[in-house]
Amino acid sequence: MTVSSMRRMRYKVRFKPDDVEVTVEGGATVLEAAFAAQVDISTSCGGKATCKKCRVIVEGPVEQSTPKAIDKDLASKGYVLACQSHVVGDIVVFVPEEARMKGQQILKAHREHGLDHLSPLTQMKQLIMEPPSLLDNLGDLERLARAIMGKEGIPAPLSILKGLPNDLREWGWKATALILAEDLGNGLVALSDPKEACHVGAALDIGTTTLVLSLVDMETGRTISTASDYNRQARAGDDVIARIAYAEEGGLEELQGLVLQTINHLLLEARASSDPLLGPCDVTALSVAGNTTMVHLFLGLDPKRIRYEPYVPVTNIPPMVRGKELDLGINAEAPVYIIPGRAGFVGGDITADVVASGMHERSELTLLIDVGTNGEVVVGNDEILVACSTSAGPAFEGGEVASGMRATFGAIERVRIGPDLEPEIGIIGKREALGICGSGLIDIVAQMFLRGLIDKKGRIQDIDSKRIRRNDEGAVYVLSQGSGKTKREISISDADLANIIRTKAAVYAGCSVLLKAIDKGFDDLEGVCIAGGFGNYIDIENAVTIGLLPDLPRKRFDFIGNAALAGAMQTLLSQEKRRKALQVYEDMTYVELSTSKAFFDEFSSASFLPHTDQERFPSVWKRMRG
Amino acid sequence: MTVSSMRRMRYKVRFKPDDVEVTVEGGATVLEAAFAAQVDISTSCGGKATCKKCRVIVEGPVEQSTPKAIDKDLASKGYVLACQSHVVGDIVVFVPEEARMKGQQILKAHREHGLDHLSPLTQMKQLIMEPPSLLDNLGDLERLARAIMGKEGIPAPLSILKGLPNDLREWGWKATALILAEDLGNGLVALSDPKEACHVGAALDIGTTTLVLSLVDMETGRTISTASDYNRQARAGDDVIARIAYAEEGGLEELQGLVLQTINHLLLEARASSDPLLGPCDVTALSVAGNTTMVHLFLGLDPKRIRYEPYVPVTNIPPMVRGKELDLGINAEAPVYIIPGRAGFVGGDITADVVASGMHERSELTLLIDVGTNGEVVVGNDEILVACSTSAGPAFEGGEVASGMRATFGAIERVRIGPDLEPEIGIIGKREALGICGSGLIDIVAQMFLRGLIDKKGRIQDIDSKRIRRNDEGAVYVLSQGSGKTKREISISDADLANIIRTKAAVYAGCSVLLKAIDKGFDDLEGVCIAGGFGNYIDIENAVTIGLLPDLPRKRFDFIGNAALAGAMQTLLSQEKRRKALQVYEDMTYVELSTSKAFFDEFSSASFLPHTDQERFPSVWKRMRG
Repeated sequence: MTVSSMRRMRYKVRFKPDDVEVTVEGGATVLEAAFAAQVDISTSCGGKATCKKCRVIVEGPVEQSTPKAIDKDLASKGYVLACQSHVVGDIVVFVPEEARMKGQQILKAHREHGLDHLSPLTQMKQLIMEPPSLLDNLGDLERLARAIMGKEGIPAPLSILKGLPNDLREWGWKATALILAEDLGNGLVALSDPKEACHVGAALDIGTTTLVLSLVDMETGRTISTASDYNRQARAGDDVIARIAYAEEGGLEELQGLVLQTINHLLLEARASSDPLLGPCDVTALSVAGNTTMVHLFLGLDPKRIRYEPYVPVTNIPPMVRGKELDLGINAEAPVYIIPGRAGFVGGDITADVVASGMHERSELTLLIDVGTNGEVVVGNDEILVACSTSAGPAFEGGEVASGMRATFGAIERVRIGPDLEPEIGIIGKREALGICGSGLIDIVAQMFLRGLIDKKGRIQDIDSKRIRRNDEGAVYVLSQGSGKTKREISISDADLANIIRTKAAVYAGCSVLLKAIDKGFDDLEGVCIAGGFGNYIDIENAVTIGLLPDLPRKRFDFIGNAALAGAMQTLLSQEKRRKALQVYEDMTYVELSTSKAFFDEFSSASFLPHTDQERFPSVWKRMRG
Repeated sequence: MTVSSMRRMRYKVRFKPDDVEVTVEGGATVLEAAFAAQVDISTSCGGKATCKKCRVIVEGPVEQSTPKAIDKDLASKGYVLACQSHVVGDIVVFVPEEARMKGQQILKAHREHGLDHLSPLTQMKQLIMEPPSLLDNLGDLERLARAIMGKEGIPAPLSILKGLPNDLREWGWKATALILAEDLGNGLVALSDPKEACHVGAALDIGTTTLVLSLVDMETGRTISTASDYNRQARAGDDVIARIAYAEEGGLEELQGLVLQTINHLLLEARASSDPLLGPCDVTALSVAGNTTMVHLFLGLDPKRIRYEPYVPVTNIPPMVRGKELDLGINAEAPVYIIPGRAGFVGGDITADVVASGMHERSELTLLIDVGTNGEVVVGNDEILVACSTSAGPAFEGGEVASGMRATFGAIERVRIGPDLEPEIGIIGKREALGICGSGLIDIVAQMFLRGLIDKKGRIQDIDSKRIRRNDEGAVYVLSQGSGKTKREISISDADLANIIRTKAAVYAGCSVLLKAIDKGFDDLEGVCIAGGFGNYIDIENAVTIGLLPDLPRKRFDFIGNAALAGAMQTLLSQEKRRKALQVYEDMTYVELSTSKAFFDEFSSASFLPHTDQERFPSVWKRMRG
């Protein structure tokens, strides 16, 4: 059976010793399955069989793409590389300790049972009560409260109170209660017949471009299913500034409606792919990570002033709201917790990144880069935290680039250009190429630069190749003439290249400025965390080649994946993490770049491949010469 | 330097003897600074230099807008008007006692309600904020929270958040905030322009027969106005059992609607009679005392099970709700606090009585009687509290008696019967007699008994008097042939008398049973508190004569008026009283009479005038003989 013919089948993958199971499509790699199951498997090459860190032992049928990628010695002991092993049947995967991600915190963020202790937004209590009698004639709510809290008072919504007397008697004085966590005041959220009890929460990353939602079993912390989709607000513009402008022109309600629609769609999709199906089980808690503008639009708050100096949001610490206050397909009383942001352009998604990375709890100086639409950067450790937004733009999420798209089926995610200047491309899902995602763009720019197709300013050179075409607007390099039904040509133009370089320059300049602000340099960095949906898939050599990432020993880099979602998950499940999120709000200093001359200077210097200062990128020059 | 050129500078203003300091912008008036520092300075003109109450002594640089506004005499002693003095440097302000109006008012209000200290359901905070800048770019909500709480997080409703950015800027970074009391979690309830700020709460007694509502100035505790009306639920029956039955037959929503209508009518009426008129000022807090059934109907909760053994309500400690959850004409976010009840037939109105009477804080054994529709009785002191409901019925509130009415204009409230058997009547408002209220009924029965018009079973005797008329249903005694336009005859019949005697017997029997339950007798009572709307107006001799009240030295009796309303007022204004209400819930033992043989026996013995046991009422027999 070939890998491609297996695509439509679905198989169970159980990870040991975590003992969590996930169902994946046939053909998915074990690494992808681990990602879906939130089991940490180390990788720094992003699944290209080069770092060889993702060694696991598999019991059951897998097919190897590159069987020789692993040392014979290890192969003989039964090891395979998770990134090269495609699932073609139900399997069990043993993940040895050395294949776990480096940072302990990351480990915790991704491991299903990794939180020391679950203290989710809502807590489930199984209750058995004595029926009332003349000698024990407490009110029904007080009886319930006594069973829940050991005392006779509890905040409860009228909607529950109205059904309470009939419900308790119908259920024979047994009930399952969901109550708010202690830090949210212990109020009653839902009550049900223990026979039909369930406890499902959702973690949500509201990105400017993409939303990702995971349904979570609140009792075990297990991820039930995950769904993602473009933000339907995209019609109002690619970046937050465009969205704010749209809201300013009277589109606020419309934008709120669009993001709520997207979320409701994700809820349905995630429910539909839950296995076993959730059935009528309500989502009773939601934790949200999003940048400040996204959070404003989600709540229907006016984001206007985020855009103008001094860039002040309505709130960085939005109060908890309830499901019913937004038009959300979750329980009406469900708490909606929103991770606090630091500033108008460093939002709760970045707080979530920091919490998930654990960088604020380690003594090692760490750089965290979230290359979403805004390109936020954080530098710090357990003593200091500084953050900025580089306004990088959505190039790496598929925006501002004519053929850009997000990392989904049909996206070109890998590009290698041979000495003949012909590209070799890898497409997600190995289907017809529909566009290029962030990791593909990084590869293209790096490979074109290395092959001399572009100069250090990113301009396509006047080289004789059938891949290069000139038109009125400049030159383009054609990656794919189009295949399949649509015959869609995929190419990259001078304008696209300029946008990508602007983006990478902004991110790099942001890192430089933050380091200077705390009197440090790149060499002082003991770790670099790369967050964002594409983080696991970018080619680190190529990212360094274009000057997006600093030229540091590669082992210092750590891909932490969608850390915003991981942070939302952690705050969904842990009061301690919610406390830490607030601590990050309090401890993190925001550095405003829009008025910073230092940033402008660094940005100018970084607007070349890889940088005007050659000494900063020795490995790249070595590679160029080589 | 001119005032306007000082606007951008900031200065420290220290108030003595309070010894609090505030930083204000140059040019602010001393009155504004006092406002910001929450130091009370009297003003009744609002800072227009006309009332001249805000006299203070300033040390340090201030500029006078109207130096002549203050008398030369005072000026020579160093006084200036706080409203006319602009801060142009660091200063110290001495506020003399006579310039503190609010303090004195509060003192008075404290005395009015027996409160040492005001800590109302909502607290008002006058806020002056620094406008945001690049160096201080907190979110608007965090800026507000910092001004309110000294920390950057506060629960706030979306409705306020939506208007927040425009409001704060329009008001020049000044605002008046109303926040929930500490025991309710400090959340934001309302925000307004300080120029239009007001702080009005309402205390409400929801009686089965009558509702009484007072509007209260939450800053001083002063009662603004009071309104009362029949409970519009009366169409569904006079007593709680009839109301429960009506709800059971599908009338729950209708009954909730009727009581909410009554309350909304009272709110309008109380506003209309406020002086000065409240204008657009919202009611932002409501404290409610009511019996358990009334509270259930108010909240739309099913009261069915209160009626059947073991008489269990949905709740005795209803959670706080918000204005918007009920169809009430108050602020949508206004907290609605409901005083906890003890049992299905001893509700929050009785807890309110106990709190207002203070009996649970004194060592003297006290009997408290609330002769509302249910006739609840409490006996106790600071060590023990027992309570019961005697199901007395609404006779003393005008129910179950043909000519009965509540104590309002046109009610016969005083009756004396002369040796000629002719009545002398006193009418409330001295208008045409429309009926008889509770105090009038007690007088009638006592006077008829003393004049031999009725026997000790309450039967009208066969005496030749033009006042006595016989018909098919028995005899009637005619009090008034009718006067004015309506020519309404007011009389009392054998059936009416039987109802009144049943009521008084139930109350007296309840007292007996409770005393026995704690091994005490009537003689051990060191005080008797008579609560209820009519409490202040009943004739104590007559009440003892019919055996409603025990025959104790008269100085032990204390009329405490509408103690339920007083308790609602106290809990509206004081966190300490809310804590005490919960303490009463915890400490008070409920005695169920419906299954008590002792009660049945006592009731039978008390169903005579004044009682079968003559020795219990020596003063009455002395009077009879006299």
